[in-house]
Amino acid sequence: MKLIIGNKNYSSWSLRAWIAARAGGFTFEEIRIPLFIPGSRERILSHSPSGKVPCLIDHGLAVWDSLAIGEYLAEKTPQLLPQDAAARATARAVTAEMHSGFQNLRSKMPMNIRKDYAGHGHTPEVDADIARITAIWKDCRSGAGGVGGDYLFGGFSLADAAFAPVCFRFRTYGVKPEGTAGEYLATMLANPWMKEWETAALAETESIPSEDLYG
Amino acid sequence: MKLIIGNKNYSSWSLRAWIAARAGGFTFEEIRIPLFIPGSRERILSHSPSGKVPCLIDHGLAVWDSLAIGEYLAEKTPQLLPQDAAARATARAVTAEMHSGFQNLRSKMPMNIRKDYAGHGHTPEVDADIARITAIWKDCRSGAGGVGGDYLFGGFSLADAAFAPVCFRFRTYGVKPEGTAGEYLATMLANPWMKEWETAALAETESIPSEDLYG
Ligand SMILES: N[C@@H](CCC(=O)N[C@@H](CS)C(=O)NCC(=O)O)C(=O)O
Ligand SMILES: N[C@@H](CCC(=O)N[C@@H](CS)C(=O)NCC(=O)O)C(=O)O
Repeated sequence: MKLIIGNKNYSSWSLRAWIAARAGGFTFEEIRIPLFIPGSRERILSHSPSGKVPCLIDHGLAVWDSLAIGEYLAEKTPQLLPQDAAARATARAVTAEMHSGFQNLRSKMPMNIRKDYAGHGHTPEVDADIARITAIWKDCRSGAGGVGGDYLFGGFSLADAAFAPVCFRFRTYGVKPEGTAGEYLATMLANPWMKEWETAALAETESIPSEDLYG
Repeated sequence: MKLIIGNKNYSSWSLRAWIAARAGGFTFEEIRIPLFIPGSRERILSHSPSGKVPCLIDHGLAVWDSLAIGEYLAEKTPQLLPQDAAARATARAVTAEMHSGFQNLRSKMPMNIRKDYAGHGHTPEVDADIARITAIWKDCRSGAGGVGGDYLFGGFSLADAAFAPVCFRFRTYGVKPEGTAGEYLATMLANPWMKEWETAALAETESIPSEDLYG
């Protein structure tokens, strides 16, 4: 398998697919295409029909979009989703809610692992997004609709992959949830795959000025 | 099962879940909550933790978000997804791409079944969204990554549910794709569940001024 990804410092969607592949124990070749430089769109399009990263290539089959990649991997490695049908439905609900929503958080607090933008990016709409995300973490982790445990649904699942970029964002922008949501954030930031991604992000040298919103 | 939905004229996400439930042959009670009027948020929140519609209630389990509802129904009725693993991966890729993308189309051409806004809403970004959507329809329907057939992947699947609102949008805004994408659009607009939804939308009396963009 090959996984096409963007810059690790910036590409939040890439992180989702990459960490799901790591969590599923897959061996894959990583093809990193730095975004928003001349030629990058053509390079991505040579792999991914959507023109976006991430894209997984498995024996010539292109599976693009992080959520679809996650489901594809979960068909091969069922522990990427909760085994209980109700918990699985809830895990997919929070994953899909993250996938299509939280536009305010995305635009005002883009993932940018190497920066410290503590205090920046808050608007009432961003704060509403943060409140909803921390409510999801609390509900899932306390077992309301979930199964409890260190992660959202027991072991690391696609739901955790979906929220992985938000965890880096919360650190960059100094968002510090309390209680069980804060514990979840700490668990995620200490996770070895998160650390591996972070180390690689910090070693990158490219900047994307349009994403460095606050200097 | 109960399905909580919004106004049929406007609520594109509701249509996705509703038509997946129809296509899966499920019997369900429909609870329609007109959106953006006093009290509607509280009514939605009494069913759906995200505060959004659609939300499916099955024996007390709330499954919110149209994509997660689709997967939940497909676990009970596997024909909602292609049986071939590669086609299933592609179906999920286009579904998830639709779920998180096409913001320009969404904002400039919101679903509004009863209006005729032919010619309105075009910007270069909207036209790029339209080009990508018609490319997806062509690729899937011609069997490149799909399985061919009247719908995107043979029989009606979650991928068709994902694009159902876009079909109504294309009609409202006078977007007329050529060739196989145009045939797909005609198939969808003639589909009996689409007609059933449309008839109910036309019978609604509420207006949401913020969605009636062009008069
Ligand atoms: N819904 C997609 C979104 C992918 C996406 O937007 N990727 C961005 C980078 S994080 C991208 O490829 N941008 C490059 C471009 O748009 O040219 C997914 O989940 O994979
Ligand atoms: N990703 C969600 C999106 C749901 C959504 O945004 N629903 C809109 C109506 S189409 C809504 O409930 N809006 C009411 C509100 O935001 O108060 C899904 O697929 O179900």
